[in-house]
Amino acid sequence: MVEKDCVFCKIVAGELPSEIVYEDDDILAFKDINPVAPVHILLIPKKHIPTITDIEEEDAALMGKLLLAAGKVADKMGIFDRGFRLVNNCREEGGQMVYHLHFHLLGGKQFGSVG
Amino acid sequence: MVEKDCVFCKIVAGELPSEIVYEDDDILAFKDINPVAPVHILLIPKKHIPTITDIEEEDAALMGKLLLAAGKVADKMGIFDRGFRLVNNCREEGGQMVYHLHFHLLGGKQFGSVG
Repeated sequence: MVEKDCVFCKIVAGELPSEIVYEDDDILAFKDINPVAPVHILLIPKKHIPTITDIEEEDAALMGKLLLAAGKVADKMGIFDRGFRLVNNCREEGGQMVYHLHFHLLGGKQFGSVG
Repeated sequence: MVEKDCVFCKIVAGELPSEIVYEDDDILAFKDINPVAPVHILLIPKKHIPTITDIEEEDAALMGKLLLAAGKVADKMGIFDRGFRLVNNCREEGGQMVYHLHFHLLGGKQFGSVG
C-alpha cells in the first residue's frame, strides 16, 4: 500500500509537508509546489498505484471517488462554476514525473479547447 | 439518460457516425474528428452526464470504469507502454466544447510535464 521511496506516499503519511486542500479516507488533494496556473492542485488516491494503466477492477470505486473529489476541490478553490482542467500524465510519453497516480486540477484561467 | 440535442448521445445511439475503438455496456471510445495528436480518442460514459462536476456518488463505479477503459484503449492503440495524456475539460474556463462528460486520450508523441 505504501511505497517507501514515493514522494506522494510520504505526503500521505505526513512525512513531507504539503498544503492540503481536501482529504477523506481514500483521497488527498494538495497544492502543486510548482504551479502552472493560478489554481494547481494534485489529486491522489492514498493507495499507492503507479499509473492509471495499473488500476484494477477492484480500484474502480476508488477512481470514482477521486473524480468526485475534483468537484469538491474546485468548490473549495472557488472555481466550481467557472470550470477547470483535469490532467493525468501517464508514463514516459505522457510526461509523468511521480509514479503515484495523480490528476492535476488546473484553473483560475481560460484554457483552450484541448490539453 | 439520453439528451436529444447532445452530439455524443447521438454517437452512442448510432445516429451520428464515429470511428469506435472501444465499447462496453457503459463506456464508448471513438476517434476525435479534429485530432491534436497522432492518437486522439474521446472516452465517454454512455449515460448523459454534462460535466465532471455533475457526477453523483452513484456514478462512482461508472467513473472507475471510464478510467479503466483508458488503459484498454491505450492498449488497442499500441501506446500502453509508451504512455499518454488524459484530459477532461470542465465547463467554460476548462475549455469544454461538448457538454457530455468526456476525457481526451492523447498519445503517440512526447508531452511535457503538465497540461
